[in-house]
Amino acid sequence: MRSGTFIAFEGGEGAGKSTQARLLAEALGRRGLEVVLTREPGGTPGAEAIRNLLLANEGDGWNWRAEALLFAAARSDHVERLIRPSLAKGRWVICDRFLDSSRAYQGRAGGLSDAEIRKLHQIGSEGLLPALTVLVNVSPEVAEQRLSLRDGGSSDRIGARSPEYHARVAAAFSEYAQEEPERFALIDGNGTVEATHALVLEAVEKLL
Amino acid sequence: MRSGTFIAFEGGEGAGKSTQARLLAEALGRRGLEVVLTREPGGTPGAEAIRNLLLANEGDGWNWRAEALLFAAARSDHVERLIRPSLAKGRWVICDRFLDSSRAYQGRAGGLSDAEIRKLHQIGSEGLLPALTVLVNVSPEVAEQRLSLRDGGSSDRIGARSPEYHARVAAAFSEYAQEEPERFALIDGNGTVEATHALVLEAVEKLL
Repeated sequence: MRSGTFIAFEGGEGAGKSTQARLLAEALGRRGLEVVLTREPGGTPGAEAIRNLLLANEGDGWNWRAEALLFAAARSDHVERLIRPSLAKGRWVICDRFLDSSRAYQGRAGGLSDAEIRKLHQIGSEGLLPALTVLVNVSPEVAEQRLSLRDGGSSDRIGARSPEYHARVAAAFSEYAQEEPERFALIDGNGTVEATHALVLEAVEKLL
Repeated sequence: MRSGTFIAFEGGEGAGKSTQARLLAEALGRRGLEVVLTREPGGTPGAEAIRNLLLANEGDGWNWRAEALLFAAARSDHVERLIRPSLAKGRWVICDRFLDSSRAYQGRAGGLSDAEIRKLHQIGSEGLLPALTVLVNVSPEVAEQRLSLRDGGSSDRIGARSPEYHARVAAAFSEYAQEEPERFALIDGNGTVEATHALVLEAVEKLL
């Protein structure tokens, strides 16, 4: 049996990643493909429990090193119990955030080197990478507007960090896409949901 | 101000580590020293939350890689928020389990290489090591008898693993002590609590 295809969505808060991941999963499903839609941190019961430790606005938070280790632990569980088994069954796996978020949030914008983040991913998940990483780019103004429309309007512990922090995250993502043009599709997410979805489909077409 | 002294207790389940760590902390306190008695996984609110994920007999457990990452995350929080600040204040830190438990339980008896466990400790805690590691050795028969006397008699998720697993843990500890005789004190824990405590005090004397 042919192995499945792993696609990750990346981008800052309010870029529309979750919506676009869901729309892509639905579009692939309509073509008769078996699709698993998942997210990080989370995607399995164990990883969701770690997600609660990471994102809940309780306690004292974590230092950069502990935060990076917790993300790698959640990813390890997710990769071993959901992503790899699904790929082995020939399914398409669409994941909202993956390794590049750790590189950007705990690495570049945080306190760890890229080599450290990659080493944690090697140890935790034997270095699994998506076949395609869809980077959804929006202007800070568009992101802010979308975040203000969310239920309750409140951010989790990481979303609530400073604008400077989120600017470093955005710069990191852009750089990763430039460094690995084969693995990344850079998508303009400033337009309507439908317009962005059309761009995503176009980028994914080459994998079909 | 003189930096404090970090002592870890290591050994298998039922070796009497916790009792001996407490007795040592009390003895040092009687000498007028400032002592912090702590344990792993745990020792800080964040690390205790991770401990619950690791040891509670709920859910599906963790693969070796996720388990090692969670221990390293708990240790990172513990080192940064309790151990290093206490040492900086000149205190004695007595810790029930530390890095060598990860090397033995997730490394040698588990699925990771010693290099991987050490790399996680380097990334998570910048490689902090105890000045002295007290390895309490007991025969399997003595350990079993002590465990049967514990409240409820039930083991946590790791304690409940097979006798073969725990034999590999014990062999690993002995080997680490042989490899680093300067850092380890090998203590016979088969005698009475008082006899073992006297041996521990003798080993610690050189640090006073």
